[in-house]
Amino acid sequence: MNIVLLAGGVGGAKLAQGLAALLPPEQLTIIVNTGDDFTHLGLPISPDLDTVMYTLAGIANRETGWGRADESWRTISEVTRLGGPDWFRLGDLDLATHLTRAHVLQNGGHLTQATQQLCQHFGVRCPILPMSNQPASTLVETEEGVLPFQTWFVQKRWQPAVKRIILPENAQASRSVILALQKADLILIAPSNPYVSINPILNVYPVRESLADAPGAVVAVTPIIAGEAVKGPAAKMMAEMGIPVTQESIVLFYEGLIDGFVFDERDQGALDHLDIPQLCTQTWMQTDEDRRRLAQEVLTFAQSLL
Amino acid sequence: MNIVLLAGGVGGAKLAQGLAALLPPEQLTIIVNTGDDFTHLGLPISPDLDTVMYTLAGIANRETGWGRADESWRTISEVTRLGGPDWFRLGDLDLATHLTRAHVLQNGGHLTQATQQLCQHFGVRCPILPMSNQPASTLVETEEGVLPFQTWFVQKRWQPAVKRIILPENAQASRSVILALQKADLILIAPSNPYVSINPILNVYPVRESLADAPGAVVAVTPIIAGEAVKGPAAKMMAEMGIPVTQESIVLFYEGLIDGFVFDERDQGALDHLDIPQLCTQTWMQTDEDRRRLAQEVLTFAQSLL
Repeated sequence: MNIVLLAGGVGGAKLAQGLAALLPPEQLTIIVNTGDDFTHLGLPISPDLDTVMYTLAGIANRETGWGRADESWRTISEVTRLGGPDWFRLGDLDLATHLTRAHVLQNGGHLTQATQQLCQHFGVRCPILPMSNQPASTLVETEEGVLPFQTWFVQKRWQPAVKRIILPENAQASRSVILALQKADLILIAPSNPYVSINPILNVYPVRESLADAPGAVVAVTPIIAGEAVKGPAAKMMAEMGIPVTQESIVLFYEGLIDGFVFDERDQGALDHLDIPQLCTQTWMQTDEDRRRLAQEVLTFAQSLL
Repeated sequence: MNIVLLAGGVGGAKLAQGLAALLPPEQLTIIVNTGDDFTHLGLPISPDLDTVMYTLAGIANRETGWGRADESWRTISEVTRLGGPDWFRLGDLDLATHLTRAHVLQNGGHLTQATQQLCQHFGVRCPILPMSNQPASTLVETEEGVLPFQTWFVQKRWQPAVKRIILPENAQASRSVILALQKADLILIAPSNPYVSINPILNVYPVRESLADAPGAVVAVTPIIAGEAVKGPAAKMMAEMGIPVTQESIVLFYEGLIDGFVFDERDQGALDHLDIPQLCTQTWMQTDEDRRRLAQEVLTFAQSLL
């Protein structure tokens, strides 16, 4: 059984960790959003890749939801003193990831190879694949104009109201991503932000087509619980874009792609009027045990759809 | 009185510090070799610029001759653990310099602007100018083939015998460098390696022409004392290239450019047969007081040639 998970940052990383605890590494592939990637202080930064990688390696900072545990800040403090930007905090350990990635890219490797090398040294055994080896930057059209994703998300703390998400045309999936999707028996969509974490992956050709045509089952887990996002801007931006903050909106967003939908028990009954296969359970993952349990329930549900 | 110093790394930095202790900052400009510059771990590294900058800021590591005092190594140790290269040691504080420089360059600034920003925040008041804003990499033809400068100098610890130094064609000086040379009353050549520190600067158009035509006085300080280099590969590579390791060789190297020559008292009499104006004094700079004293003697000597 080959399982593929499409994931953004925190929510994606949590479900990935749950799945990795249950499955042998050769059965699980995680395809990660790189629409958030950007160049900062000259270095290539891949926030979602790193969150998933650090989480699976057991070295993620669980308080912040980004960066590494046991982090220190000597270099970035000095950068700030030297007049450099201070809004994107790169810790001393985290910097080593970006420097190593830059080294691989500088020597002609691509992002998939850089990620593979990092995973190997971090002891992460299941493949973590960037959705593309090409730059495929997400832009956010806001009340303050069109902003690069990290400018909106981190520098402006996702406060400017969102009008529209702008995804690149012509972005191509990597060969590894295409192969993983072709082999997949189950494709899971993590409880990540559908608009800025999952849609950038779907937008990369031919990911959306692969899901629509998948012979196996495709199952999405909602990131919304009782009208709120577990973390981050999903609910706020839905409201700003005029989308009702409901489970039905998420189901409609994935219409034509998914065979089943997983949502929280606090929204029980919300989808009774739809005939899509549903799993209503506790989707909030606070502990490692929550992550494993939800992963197991999602797997069992998805397998029942085959 | 406008003084310009052409400088490489350690020896250049020491004389620069001596001059900076004597002169008001608006009277001193230091033009620094960037032939050693390279990209490492994705970051633009300027070893000689940084050595001069750190020395004038009083934060240089005096034991190593490179990098910063009170340095730590958390990030680079992690890079090594992640399979990155470990032969070029970038400390946590030093990294901040390269990241800040990368930030300026990434945002469309040039190397002169990046250096100016760094100097301002380090409290260095006299202008430190990279010889060029263009890449102008020095290559070293050795018994092991043609090597990038830092590969030969740091990775291979300058052990492969040198056949020839290869400098780029068509490198252009920055506008600031040209202006500083035009205004100079005295041009001093630091006791840096003539072949790999000073010649790359002279090779940048129109620096050599500016020295040859300078209306003021041009004075060089030798890096060789009693047949040995104070630090680094100068004497070793002279021997390998078939050049006698003598003061006369250095004078000949700068022939047509200099109006006076400063060499060490241990070589007293070595240039009696030449009619170039000479200052024979203690050129080895161990203490801050040595640096100031030599700077004062060189200035007095150079002024006597006007």
